[in-house]
Amino acid sequence: MTQATKTDVLIVGAGPVGLFAVFELGLLDLKCHLIDILDRPGGQCAELYPEKPIYDIPAWPVISGQGLVDRLMEQISPFDPQFTFNRIVAGLERLPDGGFRVTTDEGEAFEAKVVVIAAGGGSFQPKRPPIPGIEAYEGKSVFYAVRRMEEFRGENLLIVGGGDSALDWTLNLQPVARRLTLVHRRPEFRAAPDSVNKMLALKEAGKIDFQVGQVRALSGENGMLKSAMVKGPDDEVEIACTRLLPFFGLTMKLGPVAEWGINLNENLIPVDTEKFETSEPGIFAIGDINHYPGKLKLILSGFHEAALMAQAAKRIVHPNEKVVFQYTTSSTSLQKKLGVVG
Amino acid sequence: MTQATKTDVLIVGAGPVGLFAVFELGLLDLKCHLIDILDRPGGQCAELYPEKPIYDIPAWPVISGQGLVDRLMEQISPFDPQFTFNRIVAGLERLPDGGFRVTTDEGEAFEAKVVVIAAGGGSFQPKRPPIPGIEAYEGKSVFYAVRRMEEFRGENLLIVGGGDSALDWTLNLQPVARRLTLVHRRPEFRAAPDSVNKMLALKEAGKIDFQVGQVRALSGENGMLKSAMVKGPDDEVEIACTRLLPFFGLTMKLGPVAEWGINLNENLIPVDTEKFETSEPGIFAIGDINHYPGKLKLILSGFHEAALMAQAAKRIVHPNEKVVFQYTTSSTSLQKKLGVVG
Repeated sequence: MTQATKTDVLIVGAGPVGLFAVFELGLLDLKCHLIDILDRPGGQCAELYPEKPIYDIPAWPVISGQGLVDRLMEQISPFDPQFTFNRIVAGLERLPDGGFRVTTDEGEAFEAKVVVIAAGGGSFQPKRPPIPGIEAYEGKSVFYAVRRMEEFRGENLLIVGGGDSALDWTLNLQPVARRLTLVHRRPEFRAAPDSVNKMLALKEAGKIDFQVGQVRALSGENGMLKSAMVKGPDDEVEIACTRLLPFFGLTMKLGPVAEWGINLNENLIPVDTEKFETSEPGIFAIGDINHYPGKLKLILSGFHEAALMAQAAKRIVHPNEKVVFQYTTSSTSLQKKLGVVG
Repeated sequence: MTQATKTDVLIVGAGPVGLFAVFELGLLDLKCHLIDILDRPGGQCAELYPEKPIYDIPAWPVISGQGLVDRLMEQISPFDPQFTFNRIVAGLERLPDGGFRVTTDEGEAFEAKVVVIAAGGGSFQPKRPPIPGIEAYEGKSVFYAVRRMEEFRGENLLIVGGGDSALDWTLNLQPVARRLTLVHRRPEFRAAPDSVNKMLALKEAGKIDFQVGQVRALSGENGMLKSAMVKGPDDEVEIACTRLLPFFGLTMKLGPVAEWGINLNENLIPVDTEKFETSEPGIFAIGDINHYPGKLKLILSGFHEAALMAQAAKRIVHPNEKVVFQYTTSSTSLQKKLGVVG
């Protein structure tokens, strides 16, 4: 069994609400570890609209998505939160002592007394292209992300898509692939013009192939791909390939949370409004993923939920400590934790 | 009957939570009028700790009380909120159409479909000094605040206290008073040194009297003061006076809200957590003055409560309009209201 990393509170999701939870839990002396599927903190704010202005954060007449994340990271830095990025929380089981053992899709394990689900709309997951039977090849010769480029060395690669991911990986994997073919349903691309120009130059130089069309069928054996049928504007061609990388964008999925035994309602997690606890004691849900009467999917509401959740988490982690509610404005002990007084 | 000012939502209290309510209501096209006992917006933040750092406003690692108020005023300015300062909301009655008529202690009247109580710990009210029978003189010859200096012209004034208010009014009222005596229980003052020096200079020049001691008894007729007995370190003296101004600091009182027929619990107003509505339909309570299971007296929580309250207020003011929940980040119509797109 993998050696588990121990923490007080395991937070699933490092979006703005998960980040602010670190602050509220930190004021109560609880240490946090956050796991996120993305490669950096901020969730949707950082991934989908880093430069878009947000107008409804109180006392911020306007702030960008990335600006909000940066200020939150600064605010929680006194509490030294630990992060594990690029991981899905795959498994969760209750330990005999009432705490939880949480495992990621890469096999890391964590033990915590409290689990906080702050997963927003769920985890970003790649969209599966409409190719019959593709499931049989997934994880063996069809991949939706590149974790290690070396795994594609010497392969006949088929990359499908017309956005930045498809173009970036075409440019990055061309030197390691045996042969690389890019397929897109039309000759125009949504990617950065510079990437498109570089790709066209590789094509002109004969270093990659480009085919207009859509993948209609795959053939292979035991999950190992041999070729793909691509229907173009005029005819259908068979392209030999050993690996397929479709980049059709990301969608939001609740993911493995759905299998943790928590009551769900239309992919949302019902919680109470006193502690924001789920149907499973010790597992809380805050932010866009939860539901209660009156719920609004506002970042602000997730912040409030984090504050009330923290009080309940404290009572679970330190059941014998009396919690005295204090203000950062007047409490020297809180100010010491924040590092603003000596 | 006074001509009433009409508005959609009457907000009692212009502290940070009352101010942010203007924003959430404004996004839903509701106009607001705010009434506050203080002379400017910001409530406790502006009155008690304008320069004190606050650390727990999300995405503000540190902000001063006044800084928070300034940013909120900037954020709500597109919605043009109306303010009436220096007033207590004295009366509230329900109108036949289900709305409310609200009156102030100075007789102004307002009509609104919705009333939001965002009065924090209540209204700041002056502390009454421990002088037997003082109640009989209050409002006739004993005053806890100076609204118009002219009302004190030609009077024999007795000012009691050792803080800034006592010293400032000593300096300001000396030119209009017939005679002015300052009484404080000891020769040291808590006021700004500059004010103390100016007061001592007036005393040296024979323009005011200063007496160390405490007022023990008043004499007069029909509420009109004639003299006060002051017990000093050595003896007791009788000081002739027609007006008494005690400045013993401010205390928090729930005030007339207690008489509006709303259910109260230990001077707090119980509300639901879906709409933050009181026991009286159409009257909401947000911020430190309300109570529900899990309640924390955080500014942040008041902000969240304002957002959920606004949805319910909208349904009361515009019952036939369908409310579509929108985000400031993506909705052009909200951005037009905020004045950030044309």
